[in-house]
Amino acid sequence: MNVDGTPYRTIWTTGDDRTVRIIDQTKLPHTFTTTDLTSLDDAARAIADMLVRGAPLIGATGAYGMALAMRTDPRDENIANAYETLFATRPTASNLGWALDDLRQRLLVTSENDREAVAYKRASEICNQDVDACHSIGVHGAALISSVWEEKGQPARINVLTHCNAGWLATVDWGTALAPIYKAHEDGIPVHVWVDETRPRNQGASLTAWELSKHGVDHTLIVDNVGGHLMQHGDVDLCIVGTDRTTAAGDVCNKVGTYLKALAAQDNGVPFYVGLPHSTIDWRINDGIHDIPIETRAEREVTHIAGKTEAGETIEVQLTPDNTNALNIAFDVTPARYVTGLITERGICNASTEGLRGLYPEKAA
Amino acid sequence: MNVDGTPYRTIWTTGDDRTVRIIDQTKLPHTFTTTDLTSLDDAARAIADMLVRGAPLIGATGAYGMALAMRTDPRDENIANAYETLFATRPTASNLGWALDDLRQRLLVTSENDREAVAYKRASEICNQDVDACHSIGVHGAALISSVWEEKGQPARINVLTHCNAGWLATVDWGTALAPIYKAHEDGIPVHVWVDETRPRNQGASLTAWELSKHGVDHTLIVDNVGGHLMQHGDVDLCIVGTDRTTAAGDVCNKVGTYLKALAAQDNGVPFYVGLPHSTIDWRINDGIHDIPIETRAEREVTHIAGKTEAGETIEVQLTPDNTNALNIAFDVTPARYVTGLITERGICNASTEGLRGLYPEKAA
Repeated sequence: MNVDGTPYRTIWTTGDDRTVRIIDQTKLPHTFTTTDLTSLDDAARAIADMLVRGAPLIGATGAYGMALAMRTDPRDENIANAYETLFATRPTASNLGWALDDLRQRLLVTSENDREAVAYKRASEICNQDVDACHSIGVHGAALISSVWEEKGQPARINVLTHCNAGWLATVDWGTALAPIYKAHEDGIPVHVWVDETRPRNQGASLTAWELSKHGVDHTLIVDNVGGHLMQHGDVDLCIVGTDRTTAAGDVCNKVGTYLKALAAQDNGVPFYVGLPHSTIDWRINDGIHDIPIETRAEREVTHIAGKTEAGETIEVQLTPDNTNALNIAFDVTPARYVTGLITERGICNASTEGLRGLYPEKAA
Repeated sequence: MNVDGTPYRTIWTTGDDRTVRIIDQTKLPHTFTTTDLTSLDDAARAIADMLVRGAPLIGATGAYGMALAMRTDPRDENIANAYETLFATRPTASNLGWALDDLRQRLLVTSENDREAVAYKRASEICNQDVDACHSIGVHGAALISSVWEEKGQPARINVLTHCNAGWLATVDWGTALAPIYKAHEDGIPVHVWVDETRPRNQGASLTAWELSKHGVDHTLIVDNVGGHLMQHGDVDLCIVGTDRTTAAGDVCNKVGTYLKALAAQDNGVPFYVGLPHSTIDWRINDGIHDIPIETRAEREVTHIAGKTEAGETIEVQLTPDNTNALNIAFDVTPARYVTGLITERGICNASTEGLRGLYPEKAA
């Protein structure tokens, strides 16, 4: 999408087509800067330290991490080493394992001499497929937004609430939850987004507000506590969020706090949709609450926060009394019964085994 | 309660018994300091700028504001002026109107010469009654915590989740939601508190974590998004929150985000209790969602935050992209159907017209 009129992706190759360039998302919203990944370790650190984040973009970066590894050492041992190093970076997003499995499988049946080229080619394909998938999610989701807007008599604005960042910054381009919003905006539908700030890392305040602003989409920031009140008062027409892992039965694991918004949507009759490419579906599991590994992150993300001073410097400040203990759970699971529908690249389906198998019949056991 | 071993109240008179001293809560948790109120305007500013906050403490400060006004000008015109000035400071808390009504009524039937003395005496009584009421809430609530702890087989810790600050800092002493926790702690029950940080003003992170720490009660800070996940996994035994206004039918208006926790409690079979003195009950209304005025505060409370630098200085930093619009809704309403019970100074009742009238028969129309 656009940054001040210039189209960007979140990850691309540059120079010799071997260096991988990314937007350093830890510097947003105060500084827009790119950084180069030239090794497996660079890629692993970029994921672990969240220079890149968002399930689809983590998958894409994992694929390029495998390619960077093949550049210096294409032996089987290094395929295993790269796989393990990258897989260990973050536990929850399904796309990472999906992309790594894909690369490993292809590389192991490729001669050592060709592995670098095959890995780069496949990583690039994964990126392009993600863009295509997200674009399709956008088309299907925009039709949904349009129909809700029509049903309500074409009000002056249609209000979509989203949690965290599932925009183009979370994918290679377009986004999952935000792709329908960008497409609806392109189609001239007066979409307005309630942006949950999404504590503790504030991906809503830092990333979603930034990317919507840069692309020119109307939005208002709210703290995570406010969505329920807005729904009680009819100020939310629908919710659309992303997902880091979706079970075969339609349970949705997404940024912590998503579940609370789904409960409020249910209580107030607000449709609650989830945008996802097939790569976030974990076909091996059904029960999200018990079977999805939930990442616990550093306490400091809760007790401290980075912001911009009046002088324009970005610094970290402490929010709590000294020595306060904090627990930093990164994701939660929304049971399928609270999800109105899944917006995939193949269309919209019920959040259920039947719904997903209807769209992905090749996955039916 | 104790601050490093010294017992404190949140408001008291000093010197000539005419100067009103408060803890400046805007400086917590990084600095513990008191400030003196010597005029009506001081009192109004202390409420509006949230040097004092919490429904019962707002009521107590309002009462002393009337007394400070009588000190310089005891005429009827100044009773009206003081009432209006104080009433305009904050719209949601029921206790403010309750205390101001009480003072006005008494002062109007008192001779001008006696008004100052009567006002100070009544403000002091209101404070003492609040302490007594909160202590009783503590006794009733601690019995509840104890019974849940017994039912669960006396686990090594019993987990209570609270939102915002309804501790002694929100009242004159003891607190409403936290009074049961302090009493249970005194009784040797191993209570552990999940403290919601409570964006945007972070009263949980700044005040609840601070007062529990100073009094020595075990607690862990979480972001507001996490409570649902903890309840799904059995890590919350009960929720106790405060309220700024309770309707005659048991709807509870409290810090925004309370409603989301109540929904999660309901979804996971976790008891959800509200601690309150009678002064927060608005007997004139039933439907909280439609009839309680909800305060909207400055956008800057969402887009900026204060914290402590490494050098120990408290500064404000910007969290969002420049020029981000924010909506800052301060309270929400939890419908009575999601409230397991109300813990009052007279005992625990159902959140319903019948429940409240059973405890307060004198209010039955």
